[in-house]
Amino acid sequence: MPQSSQILPLNRGKVGVRETQEGSSRRPINVDGIDQELVEKMVYDALAWSSIHGLVVGDRSVQRSSTVPGVGMVHAPFALLPMPFPKSQLKQAYELAPIFNELVDRVSLDAKFLQDSLSRTKIADPFTSRLVDIHSKMLEINKKEEIRLGLHRSDYMLDEQTKLLLQIEMNTISSSFEGLSGLVGKLHRSLLSYYGEFLGLDFKRIPDNASVSQLSAALARAWTEYNNPRAVVLFVVQAEERNMYDQHWLSIMLKEKHNISTLRKTLAEIDAEGKLLPDGTLVVSGQVIGIVYFRARYTPTDYPSESEWRARLFMERSSAIKCPSISYRLAGTKKIQQELAKPNVLERFLDDKEDIAKLRKCFAGLWSLDDSNIVRKAIETPELFVMKPQREGGGNNIYGNEVRETLIKLQKEGSEANASYILMQRLFPTVSPTFLVREGICYKDGVVSELGVYGAYLRNNEKVILNDQCGYLMRTKLASSDEGGVAAGFAVLDSLYLT
Amino acid sequence: MPQSSQILPLNRGKVGVRETQEGSSRRPINVDGIDQELVEKMVYDALAWSSIHGLVVGDRSVQRSSTVPGVGMVHAPFALLPMPFPKSQLKQAYELAPIFNELVDRVSLDAKFLQDSLSRTKIADPFTSRLVDIHSKMLEINKKEEIRLGLHRSDYMLDEQTKLLLQIEMNTISSSFEGLSGLVGKLHRSLLSYYGEFLGLDFKRIPDNASVSQLSAALARAWTEYNNPRAVVLFVVQAEERNMYDQHWLSIMLKEKHNISTLRKTLAEIDAEGKLLPDGTLVVSGQVIGIVYFRARYTPTDYPSESEWRARLFMERSSAIKCPSISYRLAGTKKIQQELAKPNVLERFLDDKEDIAKLRKCFAGLWSLDDSNIVRKAIETPELFVMKPQREGGGNNIYGNEVRETLIKLQKEGSEANASYILMQRLFPTVSPTFLVREGICYKDGVVSELGVYGAYLRNNEKVILNDQCGYLMRTKLASSDEGGVAAGFAVLDSLYLT
Repeated sequence: MPQSSQILPLNRGKVGVRETQEGSSRRPINVDGIDQELVEKMVYDALAWSSIHGLVVGDRSVQRSSTVPGVGMVHAPFALLPMPFPKSQLKQAYELAPIFNELVDRVSLDAKFLQDSLSRTKIADPFTSRLVDIHSKMLEINKKEEIRLGLHRSDYMLDEQTKLLLQIEMNTISSSFEGLSGLVGKLHRSLLSYYGEFLGLDFKRIPDNASVSQLSAALARAWTEYNNPRAVVLFVVQAEERNMYDQHWLSIMLKEKHNISTLRKTLAEIDAEGKLLPDGTLVVSGQVIGIVYFRARYTPTDYPSESEWRARLFMERSSAIKCPSISYRLAGTKKIQQELAKPNVLERFLDDKEDIAKLRKCFAGLWSLDDSNIVRKAIETPELFVMKPQREGGGNNIYGNEVRETLIKLQKEGSEANASYILMQRLFPTVSPTFLVREGICYKDGVVSELGVYGAYLRNNEKVILNDQCGYLMRTKLASSDEGGVAAGFAVLDSLYLT
Repeated sequence: MPQSSQILPLNRGKVGVRETQEGSSRRPINVDGIDQELVEKMVYDALAWSSIHGLVVGDRSVQRSSTVPGVGMVHAPFALLPMPFPKSQLKQAYELAPIFNELVDRVSLDAKFLQDSLSRTKIADPFTSRLVDIHSKMLEINKKEEIRLGLHRSDYMLDEQTKLLLQIEMNTISSSFEGLSGLVGKLHRSLLSYYGEFLGLDFKRIPDNASVSQLSAALARAWTEYNNPRAVVLFVVQAEERNMYDQHWLSIMLKEKHNISTLRKTLAEIDAEGKLLPDGTLVVSGQVIGIVYFRARYTPTDYPSESEWRARLFMERSSAIKCPSISYRLAGTKKIQQELAKPNVLERFLDDKEDIAKLRKCFAGLWSLDDSNIVRKAIETPELFVMKPQREGGGNNIYGNEVRETLIKLQKEGSEANASYILMQRLFPTVSPTFLVREGICYKDGVVSELGVYGAYLRNNEKVILNDQCGYLMRTKLASSDEGGVAAGFAVLDSLYLT
């Protein structure tokens, strides 16, 4: 990696350049050709715009910034310019959203498939085991979810070699950044409407992105189905959350556009303050809960004690709409993703051959560690694989030589731990230089990008009420941080520039 | 003063109450009757709302927060509820705005009046002296301002005893908070639209307040008169400015609504980077300046060296529209305010008897220290007077026993320093309890409020293009901090609840 260049914005739009980067741009946006003074002005304007338009997060260096809104705010990290992206492939990703929505729903109904697929993962991974247990308990009491709400996000990369849009993962829980993602597009439109002529860029090529209004409308529509005017939406949150403004965007939109109130609680608080009425109504802090919307509980650290598991189970048993239900949750695990990629599995859930072909086209290679041919190949050429543990939250993937070492270790141990990993084809997206802005400082460096497409699905018994894409999330990260995953590295929010 | 009660918002809307205050409310909003839990919810919602809607300032405890936008932000201090205010008196204040606008313009044209009135102040106060010198130099070169733009703010208090709306001062320079003031009304409308029914309050009684769009429209209209499509608006700013977002609101509005760019520079930078073309065109950093909009240079500390004075003079000589010009600047001094309050002085500038009566009705008692009767009275009953030095920026006023001591000292010295002060009738606004939120913490305490009304005036030669009120600023401060002035004490932004 060449060293990144750093541009420091000083007062009133002046920024000092520290270093410049060697390297040429292969992109429609010629970053190296942009005048330094122009970059400085744009950075200043972008910072001011972000601050007054709510493109903010909690500042990790300020106490209380992850617990109290309004204190210790800093602009969310963003790319200064939108990322070129083929229009046809955005269309493709948007078309995939309703198909994935339907697939998740169908898979969620096949309890045997979920249980069988996860039976070995369950033994190897205690966290998955607890989730599967909840699922089993719901089967025992024959719990049916008549109203099913899915707010998903499917993440993709554009593979440089094959030029294919390939899926990285499907998130059926806590598909975050819907509040902030649309703002970055607005920021870029605002910048290009003034500076576009100097850059040879047209702001109209940044697509509209109304994720927050579409996803809040989906929550509101589900709330209507629950049909209790006194009901509120429960946001299940982490005790500390620097990304709280992303969530506040959604809850303020729910209030201002749909007149629906929200309640924010941790799992521990729900355990302490919640109760289940005999008719199945969930009541937390005296308020009837229409929808349980999970913005936490997706990693083991969200369940430090039995209290959190008790709350999780207890909500699942209620008549509240869960977003996601335990079945939707399991349908979004990496193991299920890998099972669905096996030959003839999609056919069990979907009828439309075209839909199946579309899904399959975006599947990267996915294998379980039971496949000895693949394991051998991965030991020989680990640089072509990623090893993913059955966990969410990013930052846990294994790359490079560590893939080889881990596989050899697992082989020697002959361990059941095999089942807690899957192998995935490693994607090689284009690396291109761009400007990243974090904590008021602009960096120029090589980056790769990841496209997420939101989808909303709502069903009441036999009736599909909603099944659509809901805009996108573009995240751009230092190419050098690739091995840590977007969440772990220096990732910034970005928008698309359609080509 | 009873001790204030403090309510700490914790995570997810929980706030802990520290103490409660004794005392009854005489206001339509019965603060003491509001349920604690409701207050906690409202505080949390208000903090979240403020953060994503740009009701922010720089946090004094964070480095770079006064120089780089987007870092070290904290919500602007605000009152949780709007402040009851008689509709008739808001109407009165709005009607006064165009009359004051015209008065300032007329006074600004009477060079002899300005020079004579300030002749003694000039000797006593070096800062005023420099300003008057610039005025003299403009007279020498016979500089005429054909396009005159005034963006003023007249500040008032409601005197409890007389029930009169009385003027505190007229700001003809840097009438700040136009960006944030309207947001507080929106925040309160948002809160009352959900919580209003529990409080017995109707959000429709909070008047619209479009200061930022009206004042940016006035700047844009003046820019059009300057008639150079390449011209930009120069914001003359302080090197460090925690209230920068208030200014960014205005400049982003100028850009997004009117496609006019702004340039932010300190006086020292203007001295270094500016030049005057032979035809009088002002050029700073290579850009033609259509309007010089001062958001600094109103206190002596803004002029640490000759460089700043050079820049001030140099801009005054240019053909750019100054907001304000040196004549408008002088017309807004406290000494001129006091001169205008003398019998038969308004009549020199205005013809309309009704207008004159309206202005006079809002004048508090104002006297020079040459008036020995008043000085004697002030020594006897200092609690009925405020001594104001000829300086802007707040926090320099003298109250209580210090009035007596200062007057006696000045009498003994027989000093010329007399002329650097004026005496003003002390106003006694109603003290009422309310909730103030600062740095994420809610306090309940007794407060007093100050209403500012913005006005915009634009004239090109004989043609008056604009003369209107432009919304309001409501500031509420701890009654106990009264003696320090709004700016110095713990003041928060507020809105009006019309009664």
